[in-house]
Amino acid sequence: MSEPVLRLGMIGGGPGSFIGPVHRMAAELDGKIRLVAGAFSSDAERSRQAGAGYGVDPARAYASHQAMIAAEGARPDGIDLVAIVTPNHLHVPASIDALKAGLHVMCDKPAALSLAELKQLATATSGSKGLYALTHTYTGYPLVREARALVASGRIGRLRKVVVEYSQGWLSTPLEDTGSKQAGWRTDPAKSGAGGCIGDIGVHAFNLAEYVSGSPVRELCADLSIMVPGRRLDDDCNILLRFEDGSERGVPGVLHASQIAAGDRNGLRLRVYGTDAGLDWSQETPNTLTIHGLDGRTEVLHAGAGNLGPAARGATRLPTGHPEGYIEAFANLYRDFAAAIRAGAMPADGSLPGLEAGLRGMAFIETAVANSAARAGWVRLDI
Amino acid sequence: MSEPVLRLGMIGGGPGSFIGPVHRMAAELDGKIRLVAGAFSSDAERSRQAGAGYGVDPARAYASHQAMIAAEGARPDGIDLVAIVTPNHLHVPASIDALKAGLHVMCDKPAALSLAELKQLATATSGSKGLYALTHTYTGYPLVREARALVASGRIGRLRKVVVEYSQGWLSTPLEDTGSKQAGWRTDPAKSGAGGCIGDIGVHAFNLAEYVSGSPVRELCADLSIMVPGRRLDDDCNILLRFEDGSERGVPGVLHASQIAAGDRNGLRLRVYGTDAGLDWSQETPNTLTIHGLDGRTEVLHAGAGNLGPAARGATRLPTGHPEGYIEAFANLYRDFAAAIRAGAMPADGSLPGLEAGLRGMAFIETAVANSAARAGWVRLDI
Amino acid sequence: MSEPVLRLGMIGGGPGSFIGPVHRMAAELDGKIRLVAGAFSSDAERSRQAGAGYGVDPARAYASHQAMIAAEGARPDGIDLVAIVTPNHLHVPASIDALKAGLHVMCDKPAALSLAELKQLATATSGSKGLYALTHTYTGYPLVREARALVASGRIGRLRKVVVEYSQGWLSTPLEDTGSKQAGWRTDPAKSGAGGCIGDIGVHAFNLAEYVSGSPVRELCADLSIMVPGRRLDDDCNILLRFEDGSERGVPGVLHASQIAAGDRNGLRLRVYGTDAGLDWSQETPNTLTIHGLDGRTEVLHAGAGNLGPAARGATRLPTGHPEGYIEAFANLYRDFAAAIRAGAMPADGSLPGLEAGLRGMAFIETAVANSAARAGWVRLDI
Amino acid sequence: MSEPVLRLGMIGGGPGSFIGPVHRMAAELDGKIRLVAGAFSSDAERSRQAGAGYGVDPARAYASHQAMIAAEGARPDGIDLVAIVTPNHLHVPASIDALKAGLHVMCDKPAALSLAELKQLATATSGSKGLYALTHTYTGYPLVREARALVASGRIGRLRKVVVEYSQGWLSTPLEDTGSKQAGWRTDPAKSGAGGCIGDIGVHAFNLAEYVSGSPVRELCADLSIMVPGRRLDDDCNILLRFEDGSERGVPGVLHASQIAAGDRNGLRLRVYGTDAGLDWSQETPNTLTIHGLDGRTEVLHAGAGNLGPAARGATRLPTGHPEGYIEAFANLYRDFAAAIRAGAMPADGSLPGLEAGLRGMAFIETAVANSAARAGWVRLDI
Repeated sequence: MSEPVLRLGMIGGGPGSFIGPVHRMAAELDGKIRLVAGAFSSDAERSRQAGAGYGVDPARAYASHQAMIAAEGARPDGIDLVAIVTPNHLHVPASIDALKAGLHVMCDKPAALSLAELKQLATATSGSKGLYALTHTYTGYPLVREARALVASGRIGRLRKVVVEYSQGWLSTPLEDTGSKQAGWRTDPAKSGAGGCIGDIGVHAFNLAEYVSGSPVRELCADLSIMVPGRRLDDDCNILLRFEDGSERGVPGVLHASQIAAGDRNGLRLRVYGTDAGLDWSQETPNTLTIHGLDGRTEVLHAGAGNLGPAARGATRLPTGHPEGYIEAFANLYRDFAAAIRAGAMPADGSLPGLEAGLRGMAFIETAVANSAARAGWVRLDI
Repeated sequence: MSEPVLRLGMIGGGPGSFIGPVHRMAAELDGKIRLVAGAFSSDAERSRQAGAGYGVDPARAYASHQAMIAAEGARPDGIDLVAIVTPNHLHVPASIDALKAGLHVMCDKPAALSLAELKQLATATSGSKGLYALTHTYTGYPLVREARALVASGRIGRLRKVVVEYSQGWLSTPLEDTGSKQAGWRTDPAKSGAGGCIGDIGVHAFNLAEYVSGSPVRELCADLSIMVPGRRLDDDCNILLRFEDGSERGVPGVLHASQIAAGDRNGLRLRVYGTDAGLDWSQETPNTLTIHGLDGRTEVLHAGAGNLGPAARGATRLPTGHPEGYIEAFANLYRDFAAAIRAGAMPADGSLPGLEAGLRGMAFIETAVANSAARAGWVRLDI
Repeated sequence: MSEPVLRLGMIGGGPGSFIGPVHRMAAELDGKIRLVAGAFSSDAERSRQAGAGYGVDPARAYASHQAMIAAEGARPDGIDLVAIVTPNHLHVPASIDALKAGLHVMCDKPAALSLAELKQLATATSGSKGLYALTHTYTGYPLVREARALVASGRIGRLRKVVVEYSQGWLSTPLEDTGSKQAGWRTDPAKSGAGGCIGDIGVHAFNLAEYVSGSPVRELCADLSIMVPGRRLDDDCNILLRFEDGSERGVPGVLHASQIAAGDRNGLRLRVYGTDAGLDWSQETPNTLTIHGLDGRTEVLHAGAGNLGPAARGATRLPTGHPEGYIEAFANLYRDFAAAIRAGAMPADGSLPGLEAGLRGMAFIETAVANSAARAGWVRLDI
Repeated sequence: MSEPVLRLGMIGGGPGSFIGPVHRMAAELDGKIRLVAGAFSSDAERSRQAGAGYGVDPARAYASHQAMIAAEGARPDGIDLVAIVTPNHLHVPASIDALKAGLHVMCDKPAALSLAELKQLATATSGSKGLYALTHTYTGYPLVREARALVASGRIGRLRKVVVEYSQGWLSTPLEDTGSKQAGWRTDPAKSGAGGCIGDIGVHAFNLAEYVSGSPVRELCADLSIMVPGRRLDDDCNILLRFEDGSERGVPGVLHASQIAAGDRNGLRLRVYGTDAGLDWSQETPNTLTIHGLDGRTEVLHAGAGNLGPAARGATRLPTGHPEGYIEAFANLYRDFAAAIRAGAMPADGSLPGLEAGLRGMAFIETAVANSAARAGWVRLDI
């Protein structure tokens, strides 16, 4: 009666990884997916050690994703999907190999080193029956889902303005010079691609704005900076946006993101204004969504409350007032992906970010980096 | 190198259970415990169905905890510990049977139907090598741990006042008359014991106050009410407290809890004041702790930040700014319990609630219920 | 066309006074009252100096309130009303003299040293045409007015519970031993009466609870403490309440107030719960009022917004989002009092605290002090 | 011993004015300035009526500012200063006339219709002994003063980033078509100048950013929109900034302001980040300032607390925890201006906005409007 558990293999996530363990917790939270294999490191012994930490059978801890795909493909109980949690430069090669083998892919964002590389993925894997999802984790929060549903339902009227920000301070010092693995690859163009802050978190903000507003960004004007001397990639970005609404000039917006905003933690916040109301959501207090009405009335929605819509209600596990957080939001992506795998197709409503979100994100990063360098005013955002 | 995973059997948690699935998620979150068996229902078929939902082998879904204990005891890979998630009246019988079989017990609070019953447990299982822990979940939050450590370290000076509140509104209407399973047993003396609101949430508030302040309540004066007509157990409690500090009159405190505070969600909040500073923590925004100093300066501590002490740092899984919630707090109890099981003893510092917390909680419930009924002023809280 | 400005004389408010200057600012804010005379100090020279600071003509700075009343009574442009801003022990003598002279009185709370003394005032001045108002300042906040109106309108249903708190930390140390004028008289029974914290701020909390709930307290059970060694009056109070609602047991409530809650500033907060919704207001963020509905929906009202009722709208001077504070709340009392003086009677709806509020407040203080000393359980609150 | 009260004449502020009454309250709050005359309206009878509402002698209610200046100049007790509270197009003519007559001027912002017009003022009145101040009201808040002092003291290290926003929603509908006086002139280029939202509130945000950061904006790239069809001036502005710090590219910043942000009230917020810490202040909760440190520690400063610096302490009237608001902030400008008048010079530290702030504000408005129209990338901000 109950569905068989899906078997997950991890690519990356070796010693020192932050996101590997989060993927395991998120994937397994609802009991529908189990981590059973991994290519955690290119060093066989380190891969086994990491696997032990995850509770993975040493025989299924591999030294490369190719080896894992081959060996697991030969097992009757082999993996069904992979989680790609490496630095960015390995996202596309691993995704292609997995998809070609018919595996499903849950890939960390940004999807690729470059837009061109991601387009190659699309071409190379066009016949695969594997599904492809991207960890824009913040789309998994119940009240982000509610916000998206409210906009789609017309609750705020026609779109008027979007303000999205993602403010961190952890790279205020040259942490990459101290041996920090997390800081190291994120500030290295060879591993991260052309974007620093914009690729690490700016793209999350961009994705969230499009996800909730339901409107694509069509033009931008960017100002990216390297504020910590010696750093090679941007650590601060401020971008003017225009969203598509069919009008001549579009709908104005602002995106600002930083990793040198001293003392800020993980300050992702989205405000979407329409002709009738405004929405306000912040990641650090994710269980509320505020709606400001034209008449001065403010309504606060709470995760788990009975007055939410089905998208939000389906994304909580606990009664209202019992906080859920980042891991649960992440688990919602895995839950949706498991459902998509069983259904054989990604959700038609775009509620689970996939290749299209990846392409738009890469276009955003590249366009903004180039536009900022040129200091040339506005540019269209095309894929 | 890595430790063997502990095997968990669940008692209770059948269809409609809120807390059963939470136990599974919390127990399994860190990959150190796995739910492998259960006596989910006294109906064999329902137990199997519930087991399937948890991913449990149908052969290990039993119709009674006695059957589970016997059968699992005969397996080489039998369970190591049980989670007791039934209504209150079954807590002690199941705990006794499990402990006598040498199993470890993670029991939902309150620990028993009555203080006398819980004392029987202590007597009946005194020789057991099984450990006993109690799900005072809120002690698992990182910043509750930090608050406790700060008080113990002298950061707030000598204790001056405690204010603890737990405010819910979900029983504002006679929900028990509508077939709600959750409301039904909680308002039934046969299943809940002498306390309604005080047994369900008041005892959490009481435990939290003692846990953080490090001082036991020695006297109380209680006012419990049934505000919804026809209800048989209290749904609102307001209690004056005196904490032990060696002085003649002790340290004043207030505890108020309600399940008819219309519109409140899960409003557990603790304030502890000393001669030098005050602490303030709220469960609905669990990732911050505020310290108010005498000079007017307010400091806010954040979960995951580098300036926290070891107890709090050890209780987070994510970087600061990535919210953790109720499931993660619960998982901290399981993580601590797994460590205690490996160590062969409960933590010496009292950081994990066990039998002593259970006895104090039952004494609190019974004393307050009797005191309120008598409307007789102050009474000592003795076990 | 415009009304003549009322002329105010101040009694008290000499050098070092906190509340004297606040009275002047509040009284004059709307341009309907002007401070023109004062008995600021019993030392003639100090009174003149204080008067100069207030912009008062030296000839109208007196050395006693008797002198002021006599001299001003002889002037064609003499004072219309007095503000009594002395320590408590002078409230009644000054009030009686002023009322007997036909002057109106705005008196600081608590109204008297004792309930008996205040009853004497009532007797002694029963024929006076002077009006008498009491500075329960917090009733002047727009959203307190809104809360009162919402309860009266039935918006929250029938009353279920009241939680009121007033938490300060400024007397955490024996400030009275350091020469602080403010701390000195407040901790001196000869100047303050039987109540310390309860008379200074507890009575504000009590008044606010009755003002908003519209229900009188009928019983209480109090625990007052002196936490700072050597102090002579309570500096911490925790009180169980029962409000009158015609039922056998009444409606439960809690009042806790403290002046040794380390680090707290001026933490007056009121929560009123009914069968349908709960209200929550805090003095330190006075421009919002939160309504929690049974369905989990939270509504936040903002001062100055168009969706407020007339009582709140009439109590703001600025557009929404422009914060008003304590001085403006205080000014609302003066504005209402000026209107009452012009109308020749206090408002019939009880919206401006007067003698009745004073009598209830004194009964509350005395009853709680005696009850706490006896530690005898519940007692009726009778005037 | 006490200083003579300064006599104020108001220009503008007739029936329906919001800001006129605020000026009176603010000017008079501290008892150092008194409103005694006014040219409230160009209609003599309406001016007298408005004057009566302000408590001004009908004989001193004039039908033009020229008449007021002439008549008051002939009185021995004539006015010392004027408050100019008209729509923008009258600011400069009235300022010039007053300054030429040797009167001091407190002028509403923006200072002029255009930068050129304001430069004429500077030329035309260069020999006047009258002082000129500009009501950038938000600089009067105590914690804005504290923030400015903290930046100047090096508390946040070197400047890294500035984010300033001013979000309102009251012009979400074409309010100007409904007869609203406030909306009418603000959306009329003849009365407001080239800027709508940017001139009304954007310039406040700009001023606040420079005031606190201590760094001037040197370049900008602006996107101004008219979102309400038929409106003639911008109602939404989003601007990339570069602040001067001596480096090649300067310090990045973002300014966004809106009057069509549905449901927002008066959301002015400033964040200033340095190499060591970040500051965060919001106008709607003005009595706190948050400092985020690199180590994850957050400190909250409270107005009136003992740990503030002299600039903030000098700007409060009440003990901590007693909220002060917009009127008190405004009164601080008047208090500072009164002190400046007595000293014969504006404060040397630039703490009171004057002509220089006016010139910078006008340059900002004009440059942003022109730059947005051209959509041409970055432009220098020159006066």
